[in-house]
Amino acid sequence: MDTIFTSLEHGSITSAKGFKAAGIHAGFRRNPNKYDLALVTGDDVCVAAGVFTQNVFCAAPVQVCKERLGGQGYGLARAIVVNSGNANAATGTTGLAHAHEMERLTAEALGCSETDVLVASTGVIGVQLPLEPFGALDALVGQLEATRPAGFAAARAIMTTDTKVKESAVTWESSDPAFTGTTFTVGGCCKGSGMIMPNMATMIALITSDFPVEGPAAHAALLDAVNESFNKVTVDSDTSTNDTCLLLSSGAAAPGQARISTGLAYEEFCEALRTVCADLARKIAIDGEGATRLVTVNVCGAASEEDADLCARTIANSPLVKTAIAGRDANWGRIAAAAGRSGASFAQENVDIDIMGLPVLRAGLPVEFSEEEALVRFEQPEIVLDINLGAGSCETRIWTCDFTHEYISINGDYRT
Amino acid sequence: MDTIFTSLEHGSITSAKGFKAAGIHAGFRRNPNKYDLALVTGDDVCVAAGVFTQNVFCAAPVQVCKERLGGQGYGLARAIVVNSGNANAATGTTGLAHAHEMERLTAEALGCSETDVLVASTGVIGVQLPLEPFGALDALVGQLEATRPAGFAAARAIMTTDTKVKESAVTWESSDPAFTGTTFTVGGCCKGSGMIMPNMATMIALITSDFPVEGPAAHAALLDAVNESFNKVTVDSDTSTNDTCLLLSSGAAAPGQARISTGLAYEEFCEALRTVCADLARKIAIDGEGATRLVTVNVCGAASEEDADLCARTIANSPLVKTAIAGRDANWGRIAAAAGRSGASFAQENVDIDIMGLPVLRAGLPVEFSEEEALVRFEQPEIVLDINLGAGSCETRIWTCDFTHEYISINGDYRT
Repeated sequence: MDTIFTSLEHGSITSAKGFKAAGIHAGFRRNPNKYDLALVTGDDVCVAAGVFTQNVFCAAPVQVCKERLGGQGYGLARAIVVNSGNANAATGTTGLAHAHEMERLTAEALGCSETDVLVASTGVIGVQLPLEPFGALDALVGQLEATRPAGFAAARAIMTTDTKVKESAVTWESSDPAFTGTTFTVGGCCKGSGMIMPNMATMIALITSDFPVEGPAAHAALLDAVNESFNKVTVDSDTSTNDTCLLLSSGAAAPGQARISTGLAYEEFCEALRTVCADLARKIAIDGEGATRLVTVNVCGAASEEDADLCARTIANSPLVKTAIAGRDANWGRIAAAAGRSGASFAQENVDIDIMGLPVLRAGLPVEFSEEEALVRFEQPEIVLDINLGAGSCETRIWTCDFTHEYISINGDYRT
Repeated sequence: MDTIFTSLEHGSITSAKGFKAAGIHAGFRRNPNKYDLALVTGDDVCVAAGVFTQNVFCAAPVQVCKERLGGQGYGLARAIVVNSGNANAATGTTGLAHAHEMERLTAEALGCSETDVLVASTGVIGVQLPLEPFGALDALVGQLEATRPAGFAAARAIMTTDTKVKESAVTWESSDPAFTGTTFTVGGCCKGSGMIMPNMATMIALITSDFPVEGPAAHAALLDAVNESFNKVTVDSDTSTNDTCLLLSSGAAAPGQARISTGLAYEEFCEALRTVCADLARKIAIDGEGATRLVTVNVCGAASEEDADLCARTIANSPLVKTAIAGRDANWGRIAAAAGRSGASFAQENVDIDIMGLPVLRAGLPVEFSEEEALVRFEQPEIVLDINLGAGSCETRIWTCDFTHEYISINGDYRT
């Protein structure tokens, strides 16, 4: 594909044509400076797709979204409303009723059908979602704008223990003859710093695009992008009850054109979606609770895709590996031990390991390296581990972060 | 079984008849006060059995023990020699040669055949095992005694980051008519505080018994006991490269009697072995790196044994659950979320959770409880979590510990 994709410096959920957003302090959280209610709307009804947590204890809003999008994970929608501060999880039938009420109140404020509203929640589990804060919906709707600050406000409002706002957008001029000269955009925001693991890594990711994609193809593209991005992030091996990734496609960049599901332009859309999701996923990993380093684990030479994933994931989830990185310790022994117990098939005498490009293990044996040089390389914000299992040709990449005192502090007294 | 089993207050590896032990500072570690070489010997050749790590990066001494004990995991042996400070792992053919040399030097000092010596190592990975410290073997052999202090010295010598010596022994008078009036003993010691998980939790456990058991039955009993004890402990989900559990049976309590493999007396032996292994396993969990609390996770109502294990293990390995316990936070939401992502089959509306006997979740919904009462209960040294999945009749129990700042400190700069 010769198409050139450009990352927008201040890309956001409002970068694509046909979308507005807003964020506000509604009262789910006590701190009046903390935004806690976000709204993203299409100017018209959009094609919508969703991918959700596989946790048995899935939250009420996840159940409601699944209901709206049907078993296939796609449908039509005009708005996504998200609150932070309360996850509406483990809240039973009352919680389900409140999630539906959240839809209804949003639809009322927007003047649309409640079946056009998707909902998401993030925050404390097991406390009923209060409905009073939705009194702020009219004010929120009044603030809807297609601007970058409005997108930023929405991105702020979905944060919980995140320390950084996470946004990304990519734009491209299509190389497809059917769309000559047309510029498309995919943009989004996400939150997620603790309780991050497989089966949907972010707690919440919202994506918009002005590309005219059909529903089933939108879902397929989203699933693929999620698998290669959010599902490749692990902070602490915990999958949340609320993990949700929602995509709205307006088609506004090619008005009057029929929605498509194949061809070069669709491939371009898929690539842009993967890029935005991967960028957001990396931002989640680097903002892992207490993290000081983004850690990229590359595994190659695996006998199968499953082996590559098992091995990379086991290394990325190993508290011993993560604490070693926090301590700037090029401890290949812990990486080897994690690979060895991962369940991936290989022989130890065929394994090579590099830490930040420094060969530390060759053919299963340690290689002399300069500790000083390792310390210098550890000063980089991104730590790259390369593991070649020497057992085949499959490979994968997983992102995680180091494991610090700060993680313990954040999670030792989050609820109280 | 009406047999009464008695835990010995100062039980050790020398509690059973027919064994001597010793521990010494040989020089694998710099600190002259740190014992680093242990020896356990039978007065005669014993029946030996072993269970080992399944890590692909298994250490040289593990390979040597497997060779000695054959594919079935049992054989004959007179001595076990263990060094701490160097794991002899990821050391290639040189490491294997050094492990054999460790056997040979020990056999020479003892005046026995090198095929009668089993070896184990624990400590830093990827550094060749120095042979000079084995110069201390003659002195070590000179210190061999059947006393409690000698057993304690051996237990001290196998420790790495352990903060407490871990010993246990059980004695019983057989109810089996074939052994009327005979008193048997099973005793042992172990080490292991970091890199603890499934597939053999301790790094090293040594068990002796004066019960006359046959080889295959000894291995079967050991495997069963290990599965219900060391394999039910998880500190940080990392399985070590060196995990080794070795059993020597002298038969010295019933001299002249034929070794047996079935019947009431054998059942008694199995029970005693399970008791000693479980006691040692709990001591490993409570001495987890940086741990302040032993955590017991009981899962019942599971649809299968696998589901029970998956669920309990996922909860016990969850950094979020473990940090919450460190923070004395009765955070049932994290327990529910871990259960939900474990892969075990259940419906959230059937789940009950108790923390330290306090009902916190009933039928998937939170129950009001007194935070003050929870804080009082959290002062106990053992924290018990009970999860009923309401999906069947299978159950299991897993031990772990809380996750503190101290864990990060210990593992952030262990090697350097």
